[in-house]
Amino acid sequence: MKAVGRRIVVASNRGPVSFGRDESGRVVTTRGAGGLVTALGGALAATGGLWIAAAMSEEDRSQAQRTIEVDAGAGGYQVRLLPFDPADYEGYYDGISNRVLWFLHHSLWDVPRAPTFEGLAEAWHGYRTVNDTFARALEEEGRPPREEPVYLVQDYHLAIVPALLRERMPRAAIAHFSNIPFAGPTGLRILPQPIREALLAGMLGADVVGFQALAWAENFLLGCRGLPGARVDLRRRVVRWDGRDVRVRVHPISIDPAALREEAAAEEAAAAGQDILAWIGDRRLLVRVDRAELSKNILRGFQAYERFLETNQEWLRRISFLALLNPSRQHLPEYRAYTEEAVELAGRINGRLGREDWEPIRLSLKDDYPRALAAYRLYDVLLVNPVFDGMNLVAKEGPALNERDGVLILSENAGASAELGRHALAVNPFDVEATARSIATAVQMDPVERRRRARGLRAAVARNPIDVWVRAQVEDLERMGR
Amino acid sequence: MKAVGRRIVVASNRGPVSFGRDESGRVVTTRGAGGLVTALGGALAATGGLWIAAAMSEEDRSQAQRTIEVDAGAGGYQVRLLPFDPADYEGYYDGISNRVLWFLHHSLWDVPRAPTFEGLAEAWHGYRTVNDTFARALEEEGRPPREEPVYLVQDYHLAIVPALLRERMPRAAIAHFSNIPFAGPTGLRILPQPIREALLAGMLGADVVGFQALAWAENFLLGCRGLPGARVDLRRRVVRWDGRDVRVRVHPISIDPAALREEAAAEEAAAAGQDILAWIGDRRLLVRVDRAELSKNILRGFQAYERFLETNQEWLRRISFLALLNPSRQHLPEYRAYTEEAVELAGRINGRLGREDWEPIRLSLKDDYPRALAAYRLYDVLLVNPVFDGMNLVAKEGPALNERDGVLILSENAGASAELGRHALAVNPFDVEATARSIATAVQMDPVERRRRARGLRAAVARNPIDVWVRAQVEDLERMGR
Repeated sequence: MKAVGRRIVVASNRGPVSFGRDESGRVVTTRGAGGLVTALGGALAATGGLWIAAAMSEEDRSQAQRTIEVDAGAGGYQVRLLPFDPADYEGYYDGISNRVLWFLHHSLWDVPRAPTFEGLAEAWHGYRTVNDTFARALEEEGRPPREEPVYLVQDYHLAIVPALLRERMPRAAIAHFSNIPFAGPTGLRILPQPIREALLAGMLGADVVGFQALAWAENFLLGCRGLPGARVDLRRRVVRWDGRDVRVRVHPISIDPAALREEAAAEEAAAAGQDILAWIGDRRLLVRVDRAELSKNILRGFQAYERFLETNQEWLRRISFLALLNPSRQHLPEYRAYTEEAVELAGRINGRLGREDWEPIRLSLKDDYPRALAAYRLYDVLLVNPVFDGMNLVAKEGPALNERDGVLILSENAGASAELGRHALAVNPFDVEATARSIATAVQMDPVERRRRARGLRAAVARNPIDVWVRAQVEDLERMGR
Repeated sequence: MKAVGRRIVVASNRGPVSFGRDESGRVVTTRGAGGLVTALGGALAATGGLWIAAAMSEEDRSQAQRTIEVDAGAGGYQVRLLPFDPADYEGYYDGISNRVLWFLHHSLWDVPRAPTFEGLAEAWHGYRTVNDTFARALEEEGRPPREEPVYLVQDYHLAIVPALLRERMPRAAIAHFSNIPFAGPTGLRILPQPIREALLAGMLGADVVGFQALAWAENFLLGCRGLPGARVDLRRRVVRWDGRDVRVRVHPISIDPAALREEAAAEEAAAAGQDILAWIGDRRLLVRVDRAELSKNILRGFQAYERFLETNQEWLRRISFLALLNPSRQHLPEYRAYTEEAVELAGRINGRLGREDWEPIRLSLKDDYPRALAAYRLYDVLLVNPVFDGMNLVAKEGPALNERDGVLILSENAGASAELGRHALAVNPFDVEATARSIATAVQMDPVERRRRARGLRAAVARNPIDVWVRAQVEDLERMGR
């Protein structure tokens, strides 16, 4: 089985294009951005491949019957959007993916109270149905006379696609990749046993199961040790399952600094930069850029900043904190509550410490990518302190764009810490006091060390070009075939 | 090194005796009850051993200079209570043991918000100081001309005693035993690295590290894989550390059914039994007996009962739920809030479903051991659904005393499920719907199956006599010595 050079078929929940309507009611196309689209799109264009994704909106569903051609610079690829029954999709997307798997893998539950798994059976039915529809569509794409493709299945939304596809195509080349953490063995005990085993067995349908960082790969292997019938070799990272060897691999995703710089140079980002400069004046700029998301640890970030100001009063009026939070999943009560807490806490700190001529924290709660790019260029300190995070691309995008030898404070529980940790100030994200001390260290760092670290960060990002990530997944499959 | 037959020295936070004052102001002694005191006390009496514990109260401290003689039936043993600076003890007991290690090992934190580790450094200083004082006292007891004893160090309060004692006595025979769960590798990442490593290295000072159940032993081994310098053999359950082999063992603790039956026959328990019978009439009796504790899953238990009543309306007025909750750690805000939620939820269910002649739930919030013994005798269904639990002795005491072939509903995340699971109705404690179905299954179970299961439970308890648990720990040390 030769994998490199073969046609690639990608499956993911969200596709590289989506459809909406403009003011006049016409259907318009939006191209997705971000590392995943760039990385996978480039590889697809090189092989004339196909991307299968879920139709997420009414307009997406209206486009679901046709094949969409995407131009990706060096070549093109095709996109198919799969339509689903809305109730199935709801169970799959919010019921299982967002409310169970996301919370599970990021350890976000208040365990004495949640989860209670209300409506779990119905949601799981939807999850299975959607995953099965993906598997059918993937199989169709591999039928003769077509050459058999390599399948790259993305993320926790599609965790059981590999096994469902394997049933239909016993010899297919299948990789599954998780862009989020994976729960440890104790966390997995929260799931009802049939669902826990279905998820593990589902992923083990692949030839290669990939993760962003070693900790999550290890957790997956440890989880498989609890799966009856699986034999795990922790050292070699192989699971013997169903008569096959399944390899577990770590491939940290990267970003495209050149494309990012181009976006940051565009007019809107430049204007946002002027705006930030006018606000910050000659004060230092502490920045965070995140989805307003429970795993991002926004509350402890503000608490640490408040502690820093209290214990380093010489910094009052000499620094401000720009928190750019992109609203996320606000239809879920957990997210609304968390976002409200963050807004209240920032307000309380501003009320307590702020003065007429000084705003300690400016919290912006909207989707404003140009402003994020501008903030990346201008920060003196970038705070990236998630409780747990598969990778965290802010930690790569920020240093790639920054023009001030800014210091990165980075959670040791972000996947990115493996590549960047030694050039960053590594923090335990739970330790508010230690995070406050890191802010103090960052603002007081001498210019030589700032420069050395900033260079180190840029070099670490540059060492891992964006196309390596997909290539490595395909090469894994090739090695398996030998 | 011969261990069996040698003098045993036990170290634990709480000792087998404590001191208080009666109404006239005289110092009075209270003998502790429970499996640990019975099991360890018996072994100590057989070897003329010593129990070292913390002086927890003013009156305890007043007794700290003298050696207390305890009569334990077949022989006696001695008790020494160690006095501590109150600030150190506070950091050790509430700061680290109750608020960090208990929450950590039972997965009780609402991770997006807690812990924040406020005051951690001071608390850790207290923890180290108290553990070090224990280690010094233990060493004193092993000095010539005394025969060198075997040391049995108990629980998470004294996690670093083994290493501190090992420093002083490189060749001592030391066992550490945890009566609670142990956090998995992801949970351990919540702790600041120096504390995480100090805890693991602290326990690895022992020759043998013991746990109540395999899941917790495995978690400890997995945690050690992340400790620089440790080499873990998962299959043989050995950690190579500091030039020594440390063995990890599983020894489920038991109870003393005969002693329990004697207590249950006493007047106070009999009167409580009459009281329960008068209240329950000819309805079925669902019972839970727990500390009012976040890990015990009281809320989901009530939710499941409510769900059961809603979906099985023929059982309205035909069953009542007696929840005997022993107040615990009510000075901690997390415990007060949780207990209030439980009281409110029971009140809401009673308000919604109750009738003048029928109280769906009776919640008793007090330390009432005689009533618990009576409830054990009389339950038709016993609900033991902790989210995570080292062992859970209610699951053993209940079936040992029950006279009605009562059905045990048992969390698969309680250590007790290894011995009792197949005779119980095993539930995922997070799954409220599944717990509701188990209540329905239990009340509808035919008498033959009830009897078969009840016998199975009693036999499983009887198969593991109370003295085995200590003997196994001492024998482990003996094997290490060879």
